[in-house]
Amino acid sequence: MDISIIAIGDELLIGQVVDTNSGDIARHIAPEGWTVADVQVVADKPEAIREAIERAFSRSKVVLTTGGLGPTKDDITKQVMCDIFGGQLREDPAVLANVKEVVAKRGLRLNDLTAAQAIVPTSCKVIQNRVGTAPLMWFESDGKVLVAMPGVPFETREMFATEVFPMLLQRFPSDMAVAHRTLIVTDISESLLATRLESWESALPSWAHLAYLPKPGIIRLRIDGRMANAELLSEEMDRLVNELAALCGDNLLALGDLTPARILLDELIARKLTVATAESCTGGNIAHTITSEAGSSASMLGGVVSYSNSVKQSLLGVTEESLSAHGAVSREVVTQMALGACRATGADVAMATSGIAGPGGAVEGKPVGTVWMAIAYKEHVYTELFHFPGDRSRVIDRATTMALIRTIQILRGKIQANSH
Amino acid sequence: MDISIIAIGDELLIGQVVDTNSGDIARHIAPEGWTVADVQVVADKPEAIREAIERAFSRSKVVLTTGGLGPTKDDITKQVMCDIFGGQLREDPAVLANVKEVVAKRGLRLNDLTAAQAIVPTSCKVIQNRVGTAPLMWFESDGKVLVAMPGVPFETREMFATEVFPMLLQRFPSDMAVAHRTLIVTDISESLLATRLESWESALPSWAHLAYLPKPGIIRLRIDGRMANAELLSEEMDRLVNELAALCGDNLLALGDLTPARILLDELIARKLTVATAESCTGGNIAHTITSEAGSSASMLGGVVSYSNSVKQSLLGVTEESLSAHGAVSREVVTQMALGACRATGADVAMATSGIAGPGGAVEGKPVGTVWMAIAYKEHVYTELFHFPGDRSRVIDRATTMALIRTIQILRGKIQANSH
Repeated sequence: MDISIIAIGDELLIGQVVDTNSGDIARHIAPEGWTVADVQVVADKPEAIREAIERAFSRSKVVLTTGGLGPTKDDITKQVMCDIFGGQLREDPAVLANVKEVVAKRGLRLNDLTAAQAIVPTSCKVIQNRVGTAPLMWFESDGKVLVAMPGVPFETREMFATEVFPMLLQRFPSDMAVAHRTLIVTDISESLLATRLESWESALPSWAHLAYLPKPGIIRLRIDGRMANAELLSEEMDRLVNELAALCGDNLLALGDLTPARILLDELIARKLTVATAESCTGGNIAHTITSEAGSSASMLGGVVSYSNSVKQSLLGVTEESLSAHGAVSREVVTQMALGACRATGADVAMATSGIAGPGGAVEGKPVGTVWMAIAYKEHVYTELFHFPGDRSRVIDRATTMALIRTIQILRGKIQANSH
Repeated sequence: MDISIIAIGDELLIGQVVDTNSGDIARHIAPEGWTVADVQVVADKPEAIREAIERAFSRSKVVLTTGGLGPTKDDITKQVMCDIFGGQLREDPAVLANVKEVVAKRGLRLNDLTAAQAIVPTSCKVIQNRVGTAPLMWFESDGKVLVAMPGVPFETREMFATEVFPMLLQRFPSDMAVAHRTLIVTDISESLLATRLESWESALPSWAHLAYLPKPGIIRLRIDGRMANAELLSEEMDRLVNELAALCGDNLLALGDLTPARILLDELIARKLTVATAESCTGGNIAHTITSEAGSSASMLGGVVSYSNSVKQSLLGVTEESLSAHGAVSREVVTQMALGACRATGADVAMATSGIAGPGGAVEGKPVGTVWMAIAYKEHVYTELFHFPGDRSRVIDRATTMALIRTIQILRGKIQANSH
């Protein structure tokens, strides 16, 4: 089934907040074969909200709105709902009790504006918000359903998963089976990969579709399939995944929609190895990316952010001689950093980066984007010099992803140490 | 002037990629008084793209599309443009030369799919893409303009800022002055703040508007103003900002749309102080957040990610006794971590975190979200215990933001050391 989403809020249109709710909802409904037909982002204006709802219902039986329900003045969504679905605004004692409970749990006192969240249209069925103060509202008319949800991403994600989606599934039972399979590919450009896969893709059955989803350092290939028979679909999808994996060859990094950090942790845990980081230009982002994965403490011991040369020396044992002879951005220094991280933490594997993320810092022969990387494993060190395009955040992201990917490849024996 | 944006791509609707382009464009045009009237996110389907363009032109004279121009099969945008604006697809020699140059700069070889990007509708004016291979296309008909741009955020940002927007400004000269001013507020709930500001906000002149933009740990207050006289607007905005700042009192963290990391770095640089981090539950995210700011090396020496207890001991000097008596998540251990980070790096100020980010790791009396924080400055230590709501990434984000905010407040003498 198709649903339409309306994200409400001036802050979205002025670019101070990014709409992540639509994506969260889309990912959640995909396994059931439901799709987001379209997303409209509109201002906190009654006219804009009303028009968007009309357009959305011209396409979908189910419309979800996010945002426009906070306790401050710019929220006018509830009044629009009354205009469309009838009824009037009144205080709901059950909602008020819930608001009081949520506020108390946060150690705060109830004030008039928060209490006003208990005022809801009489025409809706209220879904109590367990993780915030704005109540969710279910409107239904002529077989069409609109659910108004809060804009705070955490609240929307939690309440959609636990309350709204189960209610929608019950209201609109599904009949087609759907499947998505993702392969992660690296070290190849999108166009070169597409050339390699061209004839296979053209021969795909009509129920299947291949999508390219490039991200910094990797390309995700997703096969989408949809047919009535769930069992047959699963078998056929397995066959397609096997064919595609064979075509990807050594460029295949993983089967499944896994992050490089998750793939690395799974490899480390399987081998009972520990890992550490020594970061200069990536400034802690490799460690942050690894530790963002639940359960990373099974392998991750820690690391050093050696942003200054003095910390490179004191905590990682980089020598004064190497720094003055070769500079901080050099094969010699990252090699010492990686070995130093193993020594300082006792880890089996360590990744090190030293580079120029920009916008400043470029020197003769080392432009912005120059990054030296070293990976130490079993007393051997792999080093590589990169020249990443883009601005500061892009250089940091790319260097982080490549450090994780190269470490995976070393653990698998796909690439070899070349230094030390 | 209003513009409408259409973000094209199945990957946006299935939630595997988030549309950040619309926000980038909105922020870029705001200072000129231009606004994004609405954003439509649509699938890679000719019918959906065509309908979205019609709807967008019913509202705005200028329509921007992003995405749907890559070298792979699912791109059908160019054909839709031919259907709407006339003309036919043909290879453009100048575009082909540009594609070859961009590909060569990346050290890659040209293949057929990349070369196909040089095929463009004869009805458009091509804007050469200096940072990617997909050419930008300017269509114009009956005084209405559509610019088709690539979907890769880096390319869109760069090309919109340097080419597309200057061309649009020349084509549609602006006449109203507009101004936005942002204040950063902390340690207060949105509803309590709104209660405090209610009467002031109601008395705002008709040309001004106040918006609340909550983020984890902070609320951004933005005043938007718009009038014909730019000089008068600037004076009046100064007056409103001063009034609002006075009402915010001690909750005011900064004037201007600055990140907590930027505010902290400015305070450190002004005082010629250096900073370091000692992170357990935040896993490197505080260091990453600080080093994401350009020029952070002026104050940031580095830090230790002490994810395991052994690293807490070996690199930060946390004692075995403290760990066994109080556990890693305790006032005693974070205090030793902060002092250890100062000692190990030589920094004047250090932030330390130790907590339970979840989903696992909770113990009796220390549920998920429990975070101890310590900030060492001039031999004194400030400590605080937090209980953050939400999932792993939310706990890490909140703990990171609060560490930065508390350090700012300590440097300013707003809060005092309470330990050691």
